[in-house]
Amino acid sequence: MAGSSYGTIFRITTWGESHGKGLGVVVDGCPAGLSLKASDIQEYLNRRRPGRNRYSTQRAENDLVEILSGVFEGKTTGTPISLLVPNTDQRSRDYSEIAGYYRPGHADFGFDAKYGFRDYRGGGRSSGRETIGRVAAGAIASLLLKELGITLCAYTRSIGPVSIEKFDEEEIESNPLKMPDAEAAERASAWLEQCMSQKNSSGGIIECVVHGMPAGAGDPVFEKLDANLAKAIMSIGAVKGVEIGDGFQAASATGLENNDAFTVGEDGRITTLTNHAGGILGGISSGNDILLRAAVKPTASIAARQRTVSRQGESIEIEIHGRHDPVIVPRAVVVVEAMTALTLIDALLLGMGSRLDNLKKIWRP
Amino acid sequence: MAGSSYGTIFRITTWGESHGKGLGVVVDGCPAGLSLKASDIQEYLNRRRPGRNRYSTQRAENDLVEILSGVFEGKTTGTPISLLVPNTDQRSRDYSEIAGYYRPGHADFGFDAKYGFRDYRGGGRSSGRETIGRVAAGAIASLLLKELGITLCAYTRSIGPVSIEKFDEEEIESNPLKMPDAEAAERASAWLEQCMSQKNSSGGIIECVVHGMPAGAGDPVFEKLDANLAKAIMSIGAVKGVEIGDGFQAASATGLENNDAFTVGEDGRITTLTNHAGGILGGISSGNDILLRAAVKPTASIAARQRTVSRQGESIEIEIHGRHDPVIVPRAVVVVEAMTALTLIDALLLGMGSRLDNLKKIWRP
Amino acid sequence: MAGSSYGTIFRITTWGESHGKGLGVVVDGCPAGLSLKASDIQEYLNRRRPGRNRYSTQRAENDLVEILSGVFEGKTTGTPISLLVPNTDQRSRDYSEIAGYYRPGHADFGFDAKYGFRDYRGGGRSSGRETIGRVAAGAIASLLLKELGITLCAYTRSIGPVSIEKFDEEEIESNPLKMPDAEAAERASAWLEQCMSQKNSSGGIIECVVHGMPAGAGDPVFEKLDANLAKAIMSIGAVKGVEIGDGFQAASATGLENNDAFTVGEDGRITTLTNHAGGILGGISSGNDILLRAAVKPTASIAARQRTVSRQGESIEIEIHGRHDPVIVPRAVVVVEAMTALTLIDALLLGMGSRLDNLKKIWRP
Amino acid sequence: MAGSSYGTIFRITTWGESHGKGLGVVVDGCPAGLSLKASDIQEYLNRRRPGRNRYSTQRAENDLVEILSGVFEGKTTGTPISLLVPNTDQRSRDYSEIAGYYRPGHADFGFDAKYGFRDYRGGGRSSGRETIGRVAAGAIASLLLKELGITLCAYTRSIGPVSIEKFDEEEIESNPLKMPDAEAAERASAWLEQCMSQKNSSGGIIECVVHGMPAGAGDPVFEKLDANLAKAIMSIGAVKGVEIGDGFQAASATGLENNDAFTVGEDGRITTLTNHAGGILGGISSGNDILLRAAVKPTASIAARQRTVSRQGESIEIEIHGRHDPVIVPRAVVVVEAMTALTLIDALLLGMGSRLDNLKKIWRP
Repeated sequence: MAGSSYGTIFRITTWGESHGKGLGVVVDGCPAGLSLKASDIQEYLNRRRPGRNRYSTQRAENDLVEILSGVFEGKTTGTPISLLVPNTDQRSRDYSEIAGYYRPGHADFGFDAKYGFRDYRGGGRSSGRETIGRVAAGAIASLLLKELGITLCAYTRSIGPVSIEKFDEEEIESNPLKMPDAEAAERASAWLEQCMSQKNSSGGIIECVVHGMPAGAGDPVFEKLDANLAKAIMSIGAVKGVEIGDGFQAASATGLENNDAFTVGEDGRITTLTNHAGGILGGISSGNDILLRAAVKPTASIAARQRTVSRQGESIEIEIHGRHDPVIVPRAVVVVEAMTALTLIDALLLGMGSRLDNLKKIWRP
Repeated sequence: MAGSSYGTIFRITTWGESHGKGLGVVVDGCPAGLSLKASDIQEYLNRRRPGRNRYSTQRAENDLVEILSGVFEGKTTGTPISLLVPNTDQRSRDYSEIAGYYRPGHADFGFDAKYGFRDYRGGGRSSGRETIGRVAAGAIASLLLKELGITLCAYTRSIGPVSIEKFDEEEIESNPLKMPDAEAAERASAWLEQCMSQKNSSGGIIECVVHGMPAGAGDPVFEKLDANLAKAIMSIGAVKGVEIGDGFQAASATGLENNDAFTVGEDGRITTLTNHAGGILGGISSGNDILLRAAVKPTASIAARQRTVSRQGESIEIEIHGRHDPVIVPRAVVVVEAMTALTLIDALLLGMGSRLDNLKKIWRP
Repeated sequence: MAGSSYGTIFRITTWGESHGKGLGVVVDGCPAGLSLKASDIQEYLNRRRPGRNRYSTQRAENDLVEILSGVFEGKTTGTPISLLVPNTDQRSRDYSEIAGYYRPGHADFGFDAKYGFRDYRGGGRSSGRETIGRVAAGAIASLLLKELGITLCAYTRSIGPVSIEKFDEEEIESNPLKMPDAEAAERASAWLEQCMSQKNSSGGIIECVVHGMPAGAGDPVFEKLDANLAKAIMSIGAVKGVEIGDGFQAASATGLENNDAFTVGEDGRITTLTNHAGGILGGISSGNDILLRAAVKPTASIAARQRTVSRQGESIEIEIHGRHDPVIVPRAVVVVEAMTALTLIDALLLGMGSRLDNLKKIWRP
Repeated sequence: MAGSSYGTIFRITTWGESHGKGLGVVVDGCPAGLSLKASDIQEYLNRRRPGRNRYSTQRAENDLVEILSGVFEGKTTGTPISLLVPNTDQRSRDYSEIAGYYRPGHADFGFDAKYGFRDYRGGGRSSGRETIGRVAAGAIASLLLKELGITLCAYTRSIGPVSIEKFDEEEIESNPLKMPDAEAAERASAWLEQCMSQKNSSGGIIECVVHGMPAGAGDPVFEKLDANLAKAIMSIGAVKGVEIGDGFQAASATGLENNDAFTVGEDGRITTLTNHAGGILGGISSGNDILLRAAVKPTASIAARQRTVSRQGESIEIEIHGRHDPVIVPRAVVVVEAMTALTLIDALLLGMGSRLDNLKKIWRP
């Protein structure tokens, strides 16, 4: 089915494979009047760019984005914004070996089961490069949110056994692991060196905090804001778990520990003394910071010898060659931020008419 | 917006409040030809029924389901199946107190922020009774899956600090806590007694396993099977976290530990030696058991004294009276199973045409 | 698939068969704060009620609607409004004859081809009674539109060869044929008498005018307002054609004749001198009256002898007995109005965020 | 909102403006395994190409399509197919005049009302060039349908007052007006010469016939096959009316005239003696030819002097200069065919699981 679209009013459609002509996204439903230029989007894309340190692939991707439509005289027109990122560094290596077997931890087997065959070059559509469209679209969503006073901050919370112990926002972009804790980043580096020396890889956890989200967005029942965030985050390749607020820790807590007592803030608005709920109650934003976490599995592509099965059904042993990141967490940080932004802007657009008086504000002012 | 529908081809729409005339669900898109009678659905509803032990509310709900449409001569016709469960035990107690403040951990504040007011009687639409429609529809989805050789098994994995240490499927329905481990159930009971004596409550973890799922269901990118499962599960009130396969544990694992090596099973089909992935690779089912977990927060309604704020913005202290479960995990087990079933049947229906030859099988046989 | 829902933000889901327990609709996404009582809806349902004159079936349907959810203290809460109309007059006649063959002009054959069998009692889901849910939901949509200053007026434009020659709004509800021209109604009555004497039936045309629609609703390309209106109207059983504005007449006109010259109205707002476009330009409402027409085919159920084929594939001759309207146009008038209202309210809700400044008005006031 | 997507399982998303960098479409949900090359698509695009005769604009568009993704080794992979048609002939003329007023019959005013401003160059997103994406996607849909034995044939039925009087399929592509009647085409040419000499334009009617459609596609109630066709066709710019089968003629017919008597065909399959219904009964395909018609209004851009209003609200007189077709019907023929094909393939994909036994055929073979 059509699985490459996300969102209802603010809807993005991504396309492209690792080794095709390029990757792109069509952003439809963006409100008119937002100032937008390619460099605004490029800034986000650069945050996912590999090849900048020894923990990510050495593929020299520039991933330059071009705006093909939807912007006129520097502003969005309300019509679809088509973004294109040409592929420029597809090495013409021989993929015939990969074509013949199923890489453990990869989507190869699923694609064959579903479609009967697959574009095996560099993972095709299941490549990490698929996230380029998400990030490019997420940049636009983030700009819209900013206009509403809403800002997002995502970062690496842990890599393998190493977790952050403090939070210094300035530090996030200062280390290649995107950790808001320089010392933790150093320990994580040592851990990754060890993984690499064993032709192995590591997982990690990404956290995202949203400031300034107004209360009242999201819906009861199936379109809960946290439900949509969970889908958005879990749709990122390699993510195996999602938490909102205290998440799994809430499962071992008591009601007295977990309930957030309401209080009146200094600005006179109702808020809570704690935020175990992560800014969402009953599926609806409470006005508190939204807090979520994503569990990212270790990179499936490892150089170590592994058992698998060929397409013909023979048991074989393989060694996967090529450029692989020992950890994908740092590069996925901006993807988590993008998917969060896309979910929030759609919820805000969908929720504009929750009350009759709001409907009147727009259509019978 | 319209947030009370779930699914694309097999789409359910639930309605109803805790203290209204009843609750119900319309199940649209169910394939024709499935044998269905009210008792098939009742069996599932009975599994979520409270009032059967000291850990759930004493409200004497019978929750008897009636099929209003969509079934003819014992079989589904392909047209909408409307199911109705009348409310019979709404005590006419005075809710005016609850109406005036925001209960910590509840949806009250969110509803007021979104809609301007709320049906405060028993939680209205945010009541746990909202899940009646999910479970009734899930029963039908489960029957369809069974016809395809797919079965589901959900159970309580942990309550507060007490986790299961063995798995005895027979045991699940034998203890009120739905744990597949009788000893763990006893320890969990003791823990709940302690919570109750302190007017407190407990969270827990629910696990669901799916056997017999064929490979090839689900889609790459945004409509990944795990992404939709995450949304489905997180949309259940009180769920704060979702994991697929190893989930958060994968974040601290290495690639060598986490990759599932492919092998050829005894039946000649390709399978894996381990199942860290939880039956889904690249968003597509692999043919292995699907495994997921839901973190359930402690019941928000506790009898202990709590701080909060009135609708007028005054800081107050409250004690919530009435019937409350010290833990909702056991009653939510069947809800997790239902949401899983609903997600799987929709993915199977949506994925029928993934290959041209399948399209020909149906339309040009 | 799930074909019984309509709308995106304001979404209705209808269910029920002619001879089942009842019919109903779930209205999801209705903004909170609208005053609503059962009698508001009943008023619309009464307009489609048969049994009031010799041109519609003598089935004594009362079609009394009950609100089961979504309204609290007289106002919509923003949660799903479930409406139920029990079936009370299903005569227990023998349908076994109809079960065995395909009635010409009916959905029987299509249902069998699609589902393998069908609920043949009174047409099952393809009965005209299916429109009860549409009208009940349309009543709510109309009330919302009224709050925005938008009113709808539908009526019979022609029956068989008899067309209206003048427009007297008062007259519409004064004659059983819903014609705004008393003399035309008389001529149409004579025509229908003739049809009935020949065991025959007649088609006709319904027209709907919308006053007060603000400019700027609807979308370019696929979600054009006229495209959605066309779907809405064509989804009514027996409708075989839809026109907006001049419709098919525009096909034989020239640009000079058909273009509506812009001008400045007395209220200072931009309008047009003529309205050949029917209030929609480029898929977006222009602020002029919206004008549409539906071609309704003659009632398929006629008492005259007809050729057909049995389910076993034998050529046979049949005479359909029972209660049939010689024309369904008058009863379908309110259905056209309802579907128009449902389409407009959804377009207005979806279009609230077309500009960044509107988004700010709601979320950052 | 996101109005540039069409379809549920086979979903297309178009983008691009008349004078931007290009136009394109993402085709998502196409089944894997279809042979596809750019020239297959180019063939359809060439049918809408202007500049080939004196009745269409002299803009020398080549409209060469490039496949950017979704095809591997000559076959569709099931992942999104991104198609790009660069704009090559945007003359850098001065549009500042058009920018300042509302062209009668154009979308200008609607866009301003909705978005606050517009890309006025060549009509921007409301240009006829928007249909490039529809036609490119429709080519793929048509290829899929062909694999199922379903073929489409669209043509000009009338231009202004001139209608076809015979049907010679070979003739359609032999005359620039796409009429299946050479003599009618000549008379229509004379009529268009007259229009052009008066700086005027003409409307017309397009007809589309579908052969080989299997019975059982489409859904009852809101997702009727004819309802979706009506939306698809009405979403084409300039279309003001849609008919299925006899359409508006059915409104003046009697039941005896309009009912299609069932019979058994020579191939032993059930069919009908006549086809007034146009191949659809109760929203479901009957296996007969599907027949539809679209009323196309006269080209809004005419060189004759017209009254209008400036953006500042002043009444003015204008003469629109530039390249305009005196009739757009011939170029829209392939667009009608494309939209029909897109609607049918989606209905077929959505309807695969209408029966439990079909579900088993795919998932438990």
